[in-house]
Amino acid sequence: MARAHPEALVFDVFGTCVDWRGSIIRAGRSLNAARGWSIDWVGLADAWRAAYQPNMQKVRSGELPWTCLDDLHMMALKSLLPGYLGATPRRAIGAAELRLINTMWHRLAPWPDAVRGLKRLKTRHVIATMSNGNVALLTNMAKFAGLPWDLVFSAEWVRHYKPDRETYLSAPRYLGLKPAQVMLVAAHKDDLDGAKRAGLMTCFVPRPLEFGRAVRDAGRYDGGYEKRFDFNVRDFGELAGALGC
Amino acid sequence: MARAHPEALVFDVFGTCVDWRGSIIRAGRSLNAARGWSIDWVGLADAWRAAYQPNMQKVRSGELPWTCLDDLHMMALKSLLPGYLGATPRRAIGAAELRLINTMWHRLAPWPDAVRGLKRLKTRHVIATMSNGNVALLTNMAKFAGLPWDLVFSAEWVRHYKPDRETYLSAPRYLGLKPAQVMLVAAHKDDLDGAKRAGLMTCFVPRPLEFGRAVRDAGRYDGGYEKRFDFNVRDFGELAGALGC
Repeated sequence: MARAHPEALVFDVFGTCVDWRGSIIRAGRSLNAARGWSIDWVGLADAWRAAYQPNMQKVRSGELPWTCLDDLHMMALKSLLPGYLGATPRRAIGAAELRLINTMWHRLAPWPDAVRGLKRLKTRHVIATMSNGNVALLTNMAKFAGLPWDLVFSAEWVRHYKPDRETYLSAPRYLGLKPAQVMLVAAHKDDLDGAKRAGLMTCFVPRPLEFGRAVRDAGRYDGGYEKRFDFNVRDFGELAGALGC
Repeated sequence: MARAHPEALVFDVFGTCVDWRGSIIRAGRSLNAARGWSIDWVGLADAWRAAYQPNMQKVRSGELPWTCLDDLHMMALKSLLPGYLGATPRRAIGAAELRLINTMWHRLAPWPDAVRGLKRLKTRHVIATMSNGNVALLTNMAKFAGLPWDLVFSAEWVRHYKPDRETYLSAPRYLGLKPAQVMLVAAHKDDLDGAKRAGLMTCFVPRPLEFGRAVRDAGRYDGGYEKRFDFNVRDFGELAGALGC
């Protein structure tokens, strides 16, 4: 059956385009080696990401005023880091070190297919982020990782975190398109379901290693294709092929 | 004297990056030839652009609610076009033709140095638009003209038209930079003065042909360098050289 093709493609970023967990762990271990620290980066990366949804929920619910993701990351880092220092002396981590660690989220590595796939998709489509990351974070990451976005859509522009409807609808609204002409590409089914409720097209790309090998090997990553999504593809290259790019 | 270099460069677009007047006239003459029309595109282009500031002023003053540039362009087009039709029958221009003409602003040609200069500047700096054009217009133009923006800053994100301070300040604010770390590049001195008042760095690039040869030859284009700007350069290539890109 011929499927409608979208005009614009918007991408979830953390987990879908970039390997946040592997990147944080590698960058952290480099810091350990350079500074003589012994921070548990595996534990910290997982705890840090686990704080992500509850902290955004405080913004969504109004418990916190609008707070951008860099600032939510910093709040979480300050509260979590003492539990993962190992033998690292607390006095070793001052304000400059906290900023250095917090901006690791600006320097994440893309999945191996991401940059090449996006370049193919860009030849025929507007490609943009659709992320809860703030504008500076997404811009710096694009420079670092070579992600060739046409433009940056961020929760920060509209002060609503996904899966709030306002965030998804900002892309068609500002592109002068109908929601059904825009497709969200994401590795997370709840994100895609949010986009679908807002009327966008949806494409699932499983990223089985997002949470590490142990999670995948224990069968706790749900990478199964779903009929309710318009596309299910192995990677961005397969999506480019499916869209004739 | 060594001058501070900016982190991010933001660019005025109409006139500074693209030749709006030449592009509208060429595209219009193609339409005349294809459709058998005899619209006076030189007259219409100049009158259309002349309506730009007064219409934005209606938004700035609150006489009009927020209205994006595509819609201001359409308002002006509908009121001006009847005066420039020549022998073209009015019934030839329906809603589809109006849309086609209005979106000429989405398909403007870059000045000869623009794309190559931007690619050089992009290697070391965040480069972005800082334009009164709406997001869809700027995005479509970038695809059409090959302008390699990292991201799009538009009056539409903040609902303020330049030279309102809020527009200029949106770039440093969303990039996590100080105003003095961001430089506006523009062919218009009043635009640069607005940016300077908001604390941004400034770079003047004269575009003597923006308003056509007759205006230049009559000496009515002010292309003189000004000490009050941080940089004055002949074109984007000279700016890339000055910044070591």
